[in-house]
Amino acid sequence: MRSSPAGTEAGAGDDKKRSDSSEVRVLKQFAHGGNIYTCSQDGKKWLDFSANINPLGVAPGVRQVLEHRLDDIAVYPEPCGERVKQALAAHYEIPGAAILVGNGSTELLYTYFHTYPCRKTVLPVPSFSEYERAVRAVGGTPVYVYSRRRRSFAFPLAEVCKACERAECVIIGNPANPTGTLIEREQLMYVIQQAQKWHTDVLIDESFLDFLPTAEQYTVLDLPQRFEHVIVFRSLTHFYALPGLRLGFAVVSKRRAAAMQQHMYCWNVNILAQHAGIAALQETAYAEETRRVVAQEKQWLRRQLQALPGLETVKPTVNFILLHTSGTGKTAAELAAGLRERGILIRDGSNFAGLDPFTCRVAVKLRSENERLVQALESVI
Amino acid sequence: MRSSPAGTEAGAGDDKKRSDSSEVRVLKQFAHGGNIYTCSQDGKKWLDFSANINPLGVAPGVRQVLEHRLDDIAVYPEPCGERVKQALAAHYEIPGAAILVGNGSTELLYTYFHTYPCRKTVLPVPSFSEYERAVRAVGGTPVYVYSRRRRSFAFPLAEVCKACERAECVIIGNPANPTGTLIEREQLMYVIQQAQKWHTDVLIDESFLDFLPTAEQYTVLDLPQRFEHVIVFRSLTHFYALPGLRLGFAVVSKRRAAAMQQHMYCWNVNILAQHAGIAALQETAYAEETRRVVAQEKQWLRRQLQALPGLETVKPTVNFILLHTSGTGKTAAELAAGLRERGILIRDGSNFAGLDPFTCRVAVKLRSENERLVQALESVI
Repeated sequence: MRSSPAGTEAGAGDDKKRSDSSEVRVLKQFAHGGNIYTCSQDGKKWLDFSANINPLGVAPGVRQVLEHRLDDIAVYPEPCGERVKQALAAHYEIPGAAILVGNGSTELLYTYFHTYPCRKTVLPVPSFSEYERAVRAVGGTPVYVYSRRRRSFAFPLAEVCKACERAECVIIGNPANPTGTLIEREQLMYVIQQAQKWHTDVLIDESFLDFLPTAEQYTVLDLPQRFEHVIVFRSLTHFYALPGLRLGFAVVSKRRAAAMQQHMYCWNVNILAQHAGIAALQETAYAEETRRVVAQEKQWLRRQLQALPGLETVKPTVNFILLHTSGTGKTAAELAAGLRERGILIRDGSNFAGLDPFTCRVAVKLRSENERLVQALESVI
Repeated sequence: MRSSPAGTEAGAGDDKKRSDSSEVRVLKQFAHGGNIYTCSQDGKKWLDFSANINPLGVAPGVRQVLEHRLDDIAVYPEPCGERVKQALAAHYEIPGAAILVGNGSTELLYTYFHTYPCRKTVLPVPSFSEYERAVRAVGGTPVYVYSRRRRSFAFPLAEVCKACERAECVIIGNPANPTGTLIEREQLMYVIQQAQKWHTDVLIDESFLDFLPTAEQYTVLDLPQRFEHVIVFRSLTHFYALPGLRLGFAVVSKRRAAAMQQHMYCWNVNILAQHAGIAALQETAYAEETRRVVAQEKQWLRRQLQALPGLETVKPTVNFILLHTSGTGKTAAELAAGLRERGILIRDGSNFAGLDPFTCRVAVKLRSENERLVQALESVI
């Protein structure tokens, strides 16, 4: 009575064919930054430029609330996070659409694909590798559309629209991770209108948009209530420095929300993440300071990196910078290894689709930390 | 290019047909205990008998670790929880099979169905309502097999085996929630052998088994390494009083683990749950004390309840007791309402498939709390 597992690609229908070595390959292919667990450091703390987290750290008010509410771990969270949803709706001014809260926004991306399995999904790349993992989880195939380094990774608008005709879905990061490419709202509107003709869903990941002082000009959080085929993802992980707690949300039409909710289990967002989310949205001074520091430091750090012999940078928009190392004669992996010896982690970008072995990504952190990175790079190059 | 959402039942293929009222109905149908958020209590603390949580509360050692590691919320968790898995493998002595850790065990149940969508799933009922929600999420149909009150809810072995012939999967709680029915290992082995003939998966939920002093006689944690079609779920939520943090695991064959892992997103278990899990497994004195207190209090509370006019109880096996209220002339809902006025929550069991409006479930708590419940019941009945 048992059929083959869902999402297995054609030709590999029998999961008995899987081997450990292919698993290891998959793990490497989808490895992320911020994995401080795989590298031993003799108890010393890493200076982690591989994860794109707010350099100010957890807001003091959030830290305080968590300390105060720690005993709540002994009670169930609100099943669907109603209070967090209300706080999010008020903060982001989302009256007409529905909000789903997730155990990180990546959970909600998987929920989308479990609810609407797609055979073909357009992926402008390079992009966050969990997009592709989610696409493949349900047996779908990514249709890559490349943004090119020689064009400063500009969003390939025409090619994306063309590819949408034959796909059920497109996933667009705005700004894109790891390039930082920012897409004008008019361009997104064009994609959305074209996609509507082909009944293609448009998933827009705004996980890093909070870092941008001019976010209001770029966000499409208002669109899911007008366009059934638009779904917007947001994360509180990066901007509020809560990657350990996990909290993200999706804005979808009310009908979509009902369908997606069916695929979500009860209590998916833990109680501390719910407390933290509600508290974080109150932290307006912290939010402004974050945007100010990041705007200043991304310029400073870029100038310093650009001045190092052989390094090229892509113009950053939010809290990370893409580097090209070919001029140094060293691959990203070699550079990362050299930095690791000096207690610093960066993101080797060579496993991003569309990037070569000379690409890496660094987060924008505080001045003193950025200085340490620049000094370490100087000695490694 | 868009097909209808996955898991929608035939005849409801268009999600435009969903209405808010049907959503409310679904919410009620699958309402759980422990939802302290829907009842206002003017700031006073509920005495919550509706959630089956360890009455000793969070172990002091776990509380201490969390306090100490609170700042770790600013770093990513280990992506697949390797250290938690190692701790679980050592504690539960699971050498040959694979462990998947989940954001609560319910997440892993959904992962199973997303990986292996089943058309028909045998559900011995009454049972935990998330089983049915997960079955329906992927468009499957539950095939109920009833255990009967007049037979003290004994496990309907023959009927379950018969039903397995035409199903892809069966979900068995051992002990079952809310009845407490405990199934002998020999009986489970019989189901497993029968199910193997029909290529039917056997999912066994041992979420409450840690509460049982004789758990070793009942557990089947050793079977997934021998039987590809056996999957065992465990929760750390109930026994270690961590419902707010979410932590569960599944034991599956290595091949199954690889297939299911594909459907799981990165960082699904938050970092505090990972710390708490590792610390909790060290708490042997707490674990023994829990089993001692629960064994003693379940007997005491049952005797007291049985002595109340019109109340009948099912013999408890772990930390909850099923009550039948028809002799009091009051429904479970009426009883629950009366207790709510006295600051006490119990679980109205009438939304469990196979139970009538006169059934409710109460947790076993500490003596002073159990006394308050008995006194309140006396005055409400």
